[in-house]
Amino acid sequence: MNDLSKLLARTIVASRPDSVDADASAEAHRALVNYVGCALGGADHEAMDITLEALGRFSGAGHADVIGRREKVDMPLAALLNGISSHVHDFDDTTPSNYIHPTSPVASALFAWAAVNPVSGADFVHAFAIGFDTVTRIGDATYPNHYAAGWHSTGSIGIFGAAVAIGKLMGLNEQKMLWAIGLAATQASGIRDNFGSMAKGFHPGHAARCGLEAAFLARAGFTTGATPLEGPRGFAAVTAGGQLDADGFVDGLGEMYRFGGNTYKPYPCGIVIHPTIELCSSINAGGVSPEDIEAVELRVAPLVRDLCDQRPTSGLQGKFSIYHAASIGLVRGQGQLSEFTDEAINDPQLVDMRDKVTAVADDSVGEDSVRAIVTLRNGQKIEKFLEASLGNLKRPLSNAQLDDKFFNQISVLDEGQARQVLDLCWNIGSIGNVGDLVRAAVPH
Amino acid sequence: MNDLSKLLARTIVASRPDSVDADASAEAHRALVNYVGCALGGADHEAMDITLEALGRFSGAGHADVIGRREKVDMPLAALLNGISSHVHDFDDTTPSNYIHPTSPVASALFAWAAVNPVSGADFVHAFAIGFDTVTRIGDATYPNHYAAGWHSTGSIGIFGAAVAIGKLMGLNEQKMLWAIGLAATQASGIRDNFGSMAKGFHPGHAARCGLEAAFLARAGFTTGATPLEGPRGFAAVTAGGQLDADGFVDGLGEMYRFGGNTYKPYPCGIVIHPTIELCSSINAGGVSPEDIEAVELRVAPLVRDLCDQRPTSGLQGKFSIYHAASIGLVRGQGQLSEFTDEAINDPQLVDMRDKVTAVADDSVGEDSVRAIVTLRNGQKIEKFLEASLGNLKRPLSNAQLDDKFFNQISVLDEGQARQVLDLCWNIGSIGNVGDLVRAAVPH
Repeated sequence: MNDLSKLLARTIVASRPDSVDADASAEAHRALVNYVGCALGGADHEAMDITLEALGRFSGAGHADVIGRREKVDMPLAALLNGISSHVHDFDDTTPSNYIHPTSPVASALFAWAAVNPVSGADFVHAFAIGFDTVTRIGDATYPNHYAAGWHSTGSIGIFGAAVAIGKLMGLNEQKMLWAIGLAATQASGIRDNFGSMAKGFHPGHAARCGLEAAFLARAGFTTGATPLEGPRGFAAVTAGGQLDADGFVDGLGEMYRFGGNTYKPYPCGIVIHPTIELCSSINAGGVSPEDIEAVELRVAPLVRDLCDQRPTSGLQGKFSIYHAASIGLVRGQGQLSEFTDEAINDPQLVDMRDKVTAVADDSVGEDSVRAIVTLRNGQKIEKFLEASLGNLKRPLSNAQLDDKFFNQISVLDEGQARQVLDLCWNIGSIGNVGDLVRAAVPH
Repeated sequence: MNDLSKLLARTIVASRPDSVDADASAEAHRALVNYVGCALGGADHEAMDITLEALGRFSGAGHADVIGRREKVDMPLAALLNGISSHVHDFDDTTPSNYIHPTSPVASALFAWAAVNPVSGADFVHAFAIGFDTVTRIGDATYPNHYAAGWHSTGSIGIFGAAVAIGKLMGLNEQKMLWAIGLAATQASGIRDNFGSMAKGFHPGHAARCGLEAAFLARAGFTTGATPLEGPRGFAAVTAGGQLDADGFVDGLGEMYRFGGNTYKPYPCGIVIHPTIELCSSINAGGVSPEDIEAVELRVAPLVRDLCDQRPTSGLQGKFSIYHAASIGLVRGQGQLSEFTDEAINDPQLVDMRDKVTAVADDSVGEDSVRAIVTLRNGQKIEKFLEASLGNLKRPLSNAQLDDKFFNQISVLDEGQARQVLDLCWNIGSIGNVGDLVRAAVPH
C-alpha cells in the first residue's frame, strides 16, 4: 500500500484522548503498572550501573529522574536507563502475536519526557496508547518475517512507538510526524545474537532514547524519505523481506487501539518457556523429589527450540534455556528472580537436573503448552500436559496478581513508598502531572 | 567461519602502529585530508543547525570542539555532528568494492575523541587504519547482499569501524573489544529510503556516535553475545541473508590494511552519476549549446538506475538523479556544490533539460563509464563514451587535486586558517596531539 507511513502520521496527528476506548485504557493502565514494577525490579541491575559509568559522563544538565534510581540525568539517557531496567529481567509484557515487549520502549521514553515536562495523566495514557498501538500494528504486519530474520523486534520495532508517542506529546504536525517515523525507521536496530546478554535489555532502552531523539530532530525540521515503512528501500523491504500486511495494519487504525493481545509474565524469562516452568513446578508440588528423577523429555513448540536451546553459563542466558526452565521447576518448584542469577545457574542441583532434560520440537504442541515425560529411577514414567500456562492470553494475570508481582520487585523502595507508586500507577490516567509519579519512584 | 568476531577482536588488540605499512599510511592521510575538507564544507549546512537545535539541549559539559563550528558539545554529539557535516554533501570518499563511504563514520568518532583526549597523530592514524580496514572488510564480505537489501552501509557497517577505532585508543582487551563489536552490531542501522534527504547524512553521524558509545559501554563491562558478525542471529545472518565471505575477510587481516580501493569524489553527489557529469560537461565544453539539444539518451550501468532514478525536487535529491547529473553537465558544464542546491534544482534551464534526458540500464556499461547519445534540434546525433571517470580507481585524484577540492569547501574559514588546517592534515601522522588540529578547524 502506498503512503502507509503518511496515513499513520495523519491518523496519529488526528487522534484525541477520547479515541482510546475504555477497554484499551484499562489495559493500558495494567501495562503501565506492570512496567513500573519491572523498572523498579531492574533498577539496581549491574547493567544500569555500567551504563551510568559509561555514558553518565556525557549527560547534560540532570533534569530527568530515572525510575528506581537516585541519579538525575538528561532526558535521552533517562529513556535509555528506563528501558534497560524494565527489560533486563525479561519480566515485562509480551504480545504473543508478534513476540514484542511493547511497553518498555514506549513507556521508557514517555516517563523520561514526563520527568522533565509537565504532562497530564490523560495525555500521557493517550500518547502511550498511540505508541503501543503503533508498535503492535507494525509488529503484526511484519510478523513472522521480521522476527524470524533475527531482529529483536522489541528494539527494532519498539523505536517507532517511542518516536510517535513523544511526537504526539510535542504536537507534531503530519509532515514532522512522518519525519519522526522516518528517523525511527532509519535507527531501527537490535539483533538476537544478544539474547542471554545485557545487550538484550539495551535494545528497548536504545529504542526509547533514539525514538525520543527522532521526535526532537523531526520537530526541528530534520528531513527523511517519505515512505519509511512501505518504500522499496523502507523498513519492511529492508528488514522483513517486504512483508507488510497493509490491510491488517489499517484495520481499525485510529479507532481500535490494539491492547487486546497483551500479556504479563509470571516468570522473569522468555515467555515460551513459561509453560515448562509451571508444569515442572506442579510436578514438584505433586511430591516428585528431584533425586528420584532419571530423565526428563519435553515436547515443545518448535519456536521454543529456536529461541531457548541453550545450555546456560549465566543468569541472563538461563532466561532463554528450556533446560534451565525445567530444572528450576523440578528442583525448586518456582521461577522467580532468584532462579535467574548467576548463582542459580551454578547451583549443583540445577546443573545436575539440566543435564537430564531433553526437549523435542513438536508441531502439535502450541506455544502456550508443553508436555513432560519424567522417567524416575525406579522405572516409573510420569506424563503431564499443560494446555495453557498462566499469564498467557487464555489465563491472564488478574489485577491482584499484578499487584503481587509488583511487590515482588520493589527491593529498591520500602513498602510504603512502593504502595504509593502503585496507587499512582493504577490512577495514572487521572493524575495532574505524571512527573509526580516519576519522582515518587526515586528511592528516598 | 566460527569465531570470526573473536578473531577480529584479537587481531585489533594485537595491532601495533607499525602494522600499518607506508602505502596504507599514505592513503590514510589522503582520506583524512579529504574528510576534513568535506567536514568543513558541510559544517554550515542547515542539517547541522537543526541537529544542534534538537539535541544540543541534552549535551553534557561542552568539552568537544566540532570541525568547522564554534559550539562546544559533548563527545558523542560531536561525533554525530562531524558525521553529518562530512557526508551531507555526499562529497566524501567511497570504496567502490562495497559502495561504503568509510572515512566519515570512523574519523567522525576519532576527531570527537581527540577533541577531548590527548592522542598522538601516530596513534590516531593507527586507530583510523583499524577502523577503516574493519569497515572495508565487513563491507566486502557482505557485498552485495547487505547493500542490495536496502541498507545504507556507510551507517550500518560504518559503526563497526567507529567502535573498534575508539576501542583501540582505549586499549580494550580482547573480551571488551568483542563486546564493542557486539554493541556495534546491535545498533547497526540506516535504510536507503532516506537517500535524497538529510537522514542520509545522519547515518554516518549516528554510526560514529553509537560506535563511540559502544566502546565506552564495552570498557565499563556491558556484555553482548559472542558471535555478533557470524552467529546464526548475528549481523551477516540478519542483514545480509547470511552472506559473509570469511576467506576474503581474513585474507591479510592484521597485515594488510585495505586502503587500496578508496576513491575521492570530484563531484558532491552519488558516485555512480559522476561519469555522466563529466561526459556531459565535456559535451558542453565542446560547444554544444543547451538550446540546440532535443533529446539525450544515456546508457548506464544497471546500478545507476537502481540508485539514481529520481526526478528531484530538492538539492539533496538531485545528488541521486541521473537526469540532474546530465543536465548540469550539458547546461552549466560543471557539478559543484552550487549545482546541488534547491535553487539549482528549480533553475528553469535545468528543469527543462532534465525532461529531455532518458537513461537506459545497459549491462555492457561499467559503473565507471557512461554512453551519451545527444540528438540536436537539427537532427544531428552526437554519441560519446566515457570509459573511466575522474576520481574512480583508474583515474584517482592527485594530492594537488585533493588540495583544490579542500579549498573549494572552506567557506566557514578564511584562507589562511584553512591552509593551516590543511597542513596539519597532511602531517597528521606526526603531530603531537590531534586535538590541536580539531581546535585549528574551529572558525575564528
